[in-house]
Amino acid sequence: MSLLIKNGEIVTADARYKADIYIEDETITMIGQDMPVPAGAEVIDATGKLVFPGFIDPHVHVYLPFMATFAKDTHATASKAALIGGTTTFIEMCCPSRGEDLMEGYELWKSKAEGNSACDYTFHMGVSKFDDKTEEQLREIVADGITSFKVFLAYKNFFGVEDDELYKTLTLAKELGVIVTAHCENAALVAELQQQLLGEGKTGPEYHEVSRPVEVEAEGTNRFATFLEVTGAKGYVVHLSCQPALKAAVAAKERGVDITIESVIPHFILDKTYAERPGVEGAKHVMSPPLREKSNQQALWRALEAGLIDTVGTDHCPFDVQQKHLGDGDFTKIPNGIPAIEDRVNLLWTYGVSRGGLDIHRFVDVASTKAAKLFGLFPRKGAVAVGSDADLVIYDPSYRGVISASTHSVNNDYSGFEGMEIDGRPEVVTVRGRVAVREGKFVGEEGRGRLLRRSTSSTPEKALV
Amino acid sequence: MSLLIKNGEIVTADARYKADIYIEDETITMIGQDMPVPAGAEVIDATGKLVFPGFIDPHVHVYLPFMATFAKDTHATASKAALIGGTTTFIEMCCPSRGEDLMEGYELWKSKAEGNSACDYTFHMGVSKFDDKTEEQLREIVADGITSFKVFLAYKNFFGVEDDELYKTLTLAKELGVIVTAHCENAALVAELQQQLLGEGKTGPEYHEVSRPVEVEAEGTNRFATFLEVTGAKGYVVHLSCQPALKAAVAAKERGVDITIESVIPHFILDKTYAERPGVEGAKHVMSPPLREKSNQQALWRALEAGLIDTVGTDHCPFDVQQKHLGDGDFTKIPNGIPAIEDRVNLLWTYGVSRGGLDIHRFVDVASTKAAKLFGLFPRKGAVAVGSDADLVIYDPSYRGVISASTHSVNNDYSGFEGMEIDGRPEVVTVRGRVAVREGKFVGEEGRGRLLRRSTSSTPEKALV
Amino acid sequence: MSLLIKNGEIVTADARYKADIYIEDETITMIGQDMPVPAGAEVIDATGKLVFPGFIDPHVHVYLPFMATFAKDTHATASKAALIGGTTTFIEMCCPSRGEDLMEGYELWKSKAEGNSACDYTFHMGVSKFDDKTEEQLREIVADGITSFKVFLAYKNFFGVEDDELYKTLTLAKELGVIVTAHCENAALVAELQQQLLGEGKTGPEYHEVSRPVEVEAEGTNRFATFLEVTGAKGYVVHLSCQPALKAAVAAKERGVDITIESVIPHFILDKTYAERPGVEGAKHVMSPPLREKSNQQALWRALEAGLIDTVGTDHCPFDVQQKHLGDGDFTKIPNGIPAIEDRVNLLWTYGVSRGGLDIHRFVDVASTKAAKLFGLFPRKGAVAVGSDADLVIYDPSYRGVISASTHSVNNDYSGFEGMEIDGRPEVVTVRGRVAVREGKFVGEEGRGRLLRRSTSSTPEKALV
Amino acid sequence: MSLLIKNGEIVTADARYKADIYIEDETITMIGQDMPVPAGAEVIDATGKLVFPGFIDPHVHVYLPFMATFAKDTHATASKAALIGGTTTFIEMCCPSRGEDLMEGYELWKSKAEGNSACDYTFHMGVSKFDDKTEEQLREIVADGITSFKVFLAYKNFFGVEDDELYKTLTLAKELGVIVTAHCENAALVAELQQQLLGEGKTGPEYHEVSRPVEVEAEGTNRFATFLEVTGAKGYVVHLSCQPALKAAVAAKERGVDITIESVIPHFILDKTYAERPGVEGAKHVMSPPLREKSNQQALWRALEAGLIDTVGTDHCPFDVQQKHLGDGDFTKIPNGIPAIEDRVNLLWTYGVSRGGLDIHRFVDVASTKAAKLFGLFPRKGAVAVGSDADLVIYDPSYRGVISASTHSVNNDYSGFEGMEIDGRPEVVTVRGRVAVREGKFVGEEGRGRLLRRSTSSTPEKALV
Repeated sequence: MSLLIKNGEIVTADARYKADIYIEDETITMIGQDMPVPAGAEVIDATGKLVFPGFIDPHVHVYLPFMATFAKDTHATASKAALIGGTTTFIEMCCPSRGEDLMEGYELWKSKAEGNSACDYTFHMGVSKFDDKTEEQLREIVADGITSFKVFLAYKNFFGVEDDELYKTLTLAKELGVIVTAHCENAALVAELQQQLLGEGKTGPEYHEVSRPVEVEAEGTNRFATFLEVTGAKGYVVHLSCQPALKAAVAAKERGVDITIESVIPHFILDKTYAERPGVEGAKHVMSPPLREKSNQQALWRALEAGLIDTVGTDHCPFDVQQKHLGDGDFTKIPNGIPAIEDRVNLLWTYGVSRGGLDIHRFVDVASTKAAKLFGLFPRKGAVAVGSDADLVIYDPSYRGVISASTHSVNNDYSGFEGMEIDGRPEVVTVRGRVAVREGKFVGEEGRGRLLRRSTSSTPEKALV
Repeated sequence: MSLLIKNGEIVTADARYKADIYIEDETITMIGQDMPVPAGAEVIDATGKLVFPGFIDPHVHVYLPFMATFAKDTHATASKAALIGGTTTFIEMCCPSRGEDLMEGYELWKSKAEGNSACDYTFHMGVSKFDDKTEEQLREIVADGITSFKVFLAYKNFFGVEDDELYKTLTLAKELGVIVTAHCENAALVAELQQQLLGEGKTGPEYHEVSRPVEVEAEGTNRFATFLEVTGAKGYVVHLSCQPALKAAVAAKERGVDITIESVIPHFILDKTYAERPGVEGAKHVMSPPLREKSNQQALWRALEAGLIDTVGTDHCPFDVQQKHLGDGDFTKIPNGIPAIEDRVNLLWTYGVSRGGLDIHRFVDVASTKAAKLFGLFPRKGAVAVGSDADLVIYDPSYRGVISASTHSVNNDYSGFEGMEIDGRPEVVTVRGRVAVREGKFVGEEGRGRLLRRSTSSTPEKALV
Repeated sequence: MSLLIKNGEIVTADARYKADIYIEDETITMIGQDMPVPAGAEVIDATGKLVFPGFIDPHVHVYLPFMATFAKDTHATASKAALIGGTTTFIEMCCPSRGEDLMEGYELWKSKAEGNSACDYTFHMGVSKFDDKTEEQLREIVADGITSFKVFLAYKNFFGVEDDELYKTLTLAKELGVIVTAHCENAALVAELQQQLLGEGKTGPEYHEVSRPVEVEAEGTNRFATFLEVTGAKGYVVHLSCQPALKAAVAAKERGVDITIESVIPHFILDKTYAERPGVEGAKHVMSPPLREKSNQQALWRALEAGLIDTVGTDHCPFDVQQKHLGDGDFTKIPNGIPAIEDRVNLLWTYGVSRGGLDIHRFVDVASTKAAKLFGLFPRKGAVAVGSDADLVIYDPSYRGVISASTHSVNNDYSGFEGMEIDGRPEVVTVRGRVAVREGKFVGEEGRGRLLRRSTSSTPEKALV
Repeated sequence: MSLLIKNGEIVTADARYKADIYIEDETITMIGQDMPVPAGAEVIDATGKLVFPGFIDPHVHVYLPFMATFAKDTHATASKAALIGGTTTFIEMCCPSRGEDLMEGYELWKSKAEGNSACDYTFHMGVSKFDDKTEEQLREIVADGITSFKVFLAYKNFFGVEDDELYKTLTLAKELGVIVTAHCENAALVAELQQQLLGEGKTGPEYHEVSRPVEVEAEGTNRFATFLEVTGAKGYVVHLSCQPALKAAVAAKERGVDITIESVIPHFILDKTYAERPGVEGAKHVMSPPLREKSNQQALWRALEAGLIDTVGTDHCPFDVQQKHLGDGDFTKIPNGIPAIEDRVNLLWTYGVSRGGLDIHRFVDVASTKAAKLFGLFPRKGAVAVGSDADLVIYDPSYRGVISASTHSVNNDYSGFEGMEIDGRPEVVTVRGRVAVREGKFVGEEGRGRLLRRSTSSTPEKALV
């Protein structure tokens, strides 16, 4: 089985050229000019289109028991929405809570995904405690190919780790060559501010940001950076949302801490006025860290362009309107999350590249290649190169559309980006050599996605083939 | 005429894979696995080798009347040394002095290079004054394809510009979409400190660094960043050497200034104790900004890894021992410069990738791809991609050698890196499809190099073919 | 002749207590409780009043040929306004322009003041060039008791010095133990931005701030700090107006540069919207550095409270409405300056201490004591102590008033603070033991003020008596 | 009973003059020139001497059950050593551990001190937990005149508070107008590093600093500053020891956080090489934060001069050689502390004022006045002013001596400053009008010292009399 993509303009993190791409089975085997059509090959004409490596979303929640309910997605629904949006690989947060056994959690999450995802996926393994069994279990999980951890400095007693647990996790990660991703907010400050606000009768979604001000995130970021500095571990700040946290992380970079930064698409596009809309309209835009004052957006865009921010993810986590109503009268009970897995690439393209000053290669890097490198997926993923998996996005920059819950594919009854224009869309998407999306519709095979097992940075990356 | 490079491991800024590369005439036309050998093609077996895009040195002096003498190189000698070291494109500083006519200078520099370089080249156009004729001349030069400027904040009255001239240059550059590279030191502080030191009888090369302390460079960097901030122009700090200057430049990046940073190989490898060696031994290691206290090296390496430094050049500028003696008894008369064009890639590979923690893709990016992107050469140069110029370096990571003036190709009777080990070398180097280096020896065609005419960032980059 | 001030509450930079103050001739000779009234002593009852050391304005223009006109004041008018406002000593900028001889300028300024001021005064000696005669002249002027210099980094070719002149001035100052005060703006940026704005038809006073943005001041501040760092001289930034400049100066403090910071009262009270009022209303509020965006005010107040800002002066410089009209149609021709000598203390008291969070001892320190210490006037001035000059302000915190040109004493037909409320005023003011103000009216002796000759920091301060 | 101190040179934080001081009972009632000797007054001739306000040590441990032993002092021994060293008031840390009842602890500490101290004293009330009873107990203690708290971010489970307890403490402090002092180190990092080092067989005192690196302190400082920022409370960092922590605290000052900084005398004088001496010699110099690399000292001195550091205390905490041996073979068991109460003033005078560049008024401010202001003792203490307590130090700057355990008065068998020269000493010290030290010997009345009850900043300071 083979596929020939002809006449596209290939754009990667470091190249841009017109060429044909030939795919045999699941792999790119040839890139060249004016290639003849081999016998039996399907031909896709990409004239006038851009051909990107499949995009990678490094921060996704699919199965998630959280805040007295469950995120709406299944791996079937999430993966289809991802593919329609151009994302061919996602990394899910495997998040057993503090009360659960890590290994059981890991098996549970794997079982939910297995055979159900239309695209490839892997996990960041959540470490929500560090007890006598943890080290052995994590070694086993890493040996199983899950080579990144996730810790929460927020959500004390639920997902959150204490400082001593953080230290132990980082020390083990350092030994194993595993990168640790971290949600950086000060748990106690959030909890206390929440209590204080509720006590003052401030119960609406507009107080969500007040309960998690930028100082709370800057503190968490600085603390995480300090622990990286002391342990020598490799870290990754997830969903950085504001200038003070950015300042803390960049200062750490400057003094040599091995820290990288992810921001997520909602923080580039939305601001806190969305969460200040009355009632459930506000609740729809509640996530953590919260949407911020608009001035932070400019700081994020600039830092993205300057290479200070490394990746753009989503923190995709859909709850429907009914679920959002759980927080009526108490903003601390609003399930946190905004679905974004389908919209990330189009929004970043539109408001970054098409209408903003974002370099097209930076776009590919932050939305695909850099995540592949950081998380041991590269060059299997994140590249348009001979030997790489044939995960490709044939993008139509002339498409014009509007995001709406009435037309989107995400399994949710509202969109956080309702009414926003987009200046392009994935026309064709392939997953390991097979077409999964055509003309914006899912045409792929359900359940074909595989769990991606990864090596660690202590086993240095080699060429694939 | 065609060439097939088989079985190499291709490594670019964003990919790593084993594949064959097929080249027709000057261009890469196909990349694939197990390609059949076309009739008439020369085959090079790259088994066990790495295949990099040709490296680009963004900061070179070849023809240079400076400090009462001339840099030793011709375009013939410099280009051969460059190629042997893996550099297939260099950007020369075209540096007419304040007393000369810019256009005449430009024509002079072009005439020196034309027909004499074995590899491709282009210029940063030095702007050493801004008088009534300057704007018109610069427009003409930009139209001729020279789309980057160079200014000196140091060397007052010789190369240096005044603040008002800097402003005018940046304003014009902004309009034209031209990037401005800048030597950032405070001219007056240097001149005054020199006078003071000489007055105190401090005349040896060990006082060179004392006369240009880190504060002087940090001030220049901050001032340049401020002018970029106010004008909105795009800037590039050349040869940043120390932590305080880095801090100033990163602070500017963080507040959104469009500034990029080059450091040069001597500052990563050498420290000021080299220049403190007695007599002409010290003088051999005199360059500006000067070699610094060793602690700054760690800061540079870390910033390089973290993506805060964008490119690594050389500031190649050879003067021989006799010329260095011009500064006997007066360090201000030592011709400034250390030859490095041949050694840059091998040193960065050895002390960065092979023995340090530098990621191999960062290595390619900082030594090739990023310079191509910044200076309008991309994707013609800096990429291994279909349609790109077939400038390739087949690198042998198993080679072991020692740098020495007795064996190097640079036209100079000493090496600033004498006795240093290297862990690899370019085995074969091609220039637009023709082999120019084999087994570390120049076998190319003299004078084949072309002046690269470039577009500006205001005419956005498109796919080449 | 003797004076007994009874029952006041004495408040200094480091003490607060109720006591009587006994003054013989010009000097405080006794402070005690329930002192008997010596024969022949005049008694002033200060019950319910605060007794402060006379306030010192470290930054005043009286005689000033500037921008094609002259500041409105004479030493008679300025000193009366000062005294009514509680200022018993002012330091005038002696500002010969670059075309004038420094010594002639010094003599001219002295002659203008001599015999005309009702309060004591001294000068910061302006250094507007550094030629062959400068060093000798400055040595002579310092020997005459003028132990502080003033340089302008702005106003190129008029007051401004070049970088080499700055270096020479600081080097001499370092040798002599003289502090150098500096107006920190980048001259070239201002000049170029002015030309650009005028060229675009942007001629109104609202463009004054646009022509001198915060970056321009931050650059000047950083450059001045660097020159202090390299020379080891002691410096003082005048009229710092904004957060970026504050950041530059505090960073210098942190790395050990001997730098102190003055801000002036208009920048604490007014913002740029005042200068954006149409026509001459805007012009009334044109000064340099310009009034800033309001957010900078909070930064200044906080820094003042935290001890990061050292003194509060005025940059008093009155031009009347007719003079302000000189800039009709061209904001660069508006004479720069806002009169404030009479209002500084009352505004700082009202909006700092009475209505803000400013500590009362900080108030005394920044408005009096610190300037006395920095400029060699202490403890003769700036203290309520035995042996100190009996310059005292008996302040009535229960007074309520409104600032208005219709009632003020400054020699000007408008007030920049028109309509602002004040929560106190000087009830009685003494100059060296004699009452100069009673019930807010000048009742003193014209021309009694003396030129204060000062020692340098290289001749360390000793007790006076 | 009255006392007349004649002919001294009075030096305070803001004044310097020669005058006589007349004291009736416990209070200064008159300051004047050439005062007649009242009948019955004792006269002390201070000719050639400096007269300072009694110095205040804001950070002292006297009674302290800690690390399986007790600090060596009693209030009798500590207060005598204090007075001989010129300290007339100390603030003791009242430190009940987490397992004890706060109120019982408070009563215990009071009972230890009552009737036993020769000088006045007060407490910072340690808050080592925040449970149901804490708020009420703290309100009671504040009402009893103890208006400052102490929290430990280090020493988890013993003295240390959790983040939620810190928040609650600060919120209450904010309401009550109480300042909170904080030991800023990250408890978990210290505990983990200790375990790791011991596990590697690194058991000597030279590993104490390695277990509490500067990052640990910078993190604690930043976290404390963030909690102040969010709660609006007023904070005071105790014993700041290094540049990274300073940077964190100054950054907080700059963004308006109400934070002040104490450093302690050992960190100005000693460096970590002292603690690296073999065996118990190293153990003698173990305190926390630990003695640092020498470069931090320069940063502290500079920050002190520039006003960035507010006070200089001691963290006095004596353990004798036998007690120090408790840590043989395990540095984590070395009782932490270096006695310094007797030496602080002489060392700061000698190495700050006499041999360094510290301004004499800054010396008085940081060693006396500022602490009085911050902790509600002012102007009763910290001032030489009419109405103030007659706590005076008549200092002989011509005295020359050497610090030695063989001659010191501190109740300990070694001195951390053994062999260091001093350039002055207190000749006479008075406590509320009575002579307690003459010619460097204690001649006072044991047990005369009083507990100083203080008001809060929410009841604004007024003149005393």
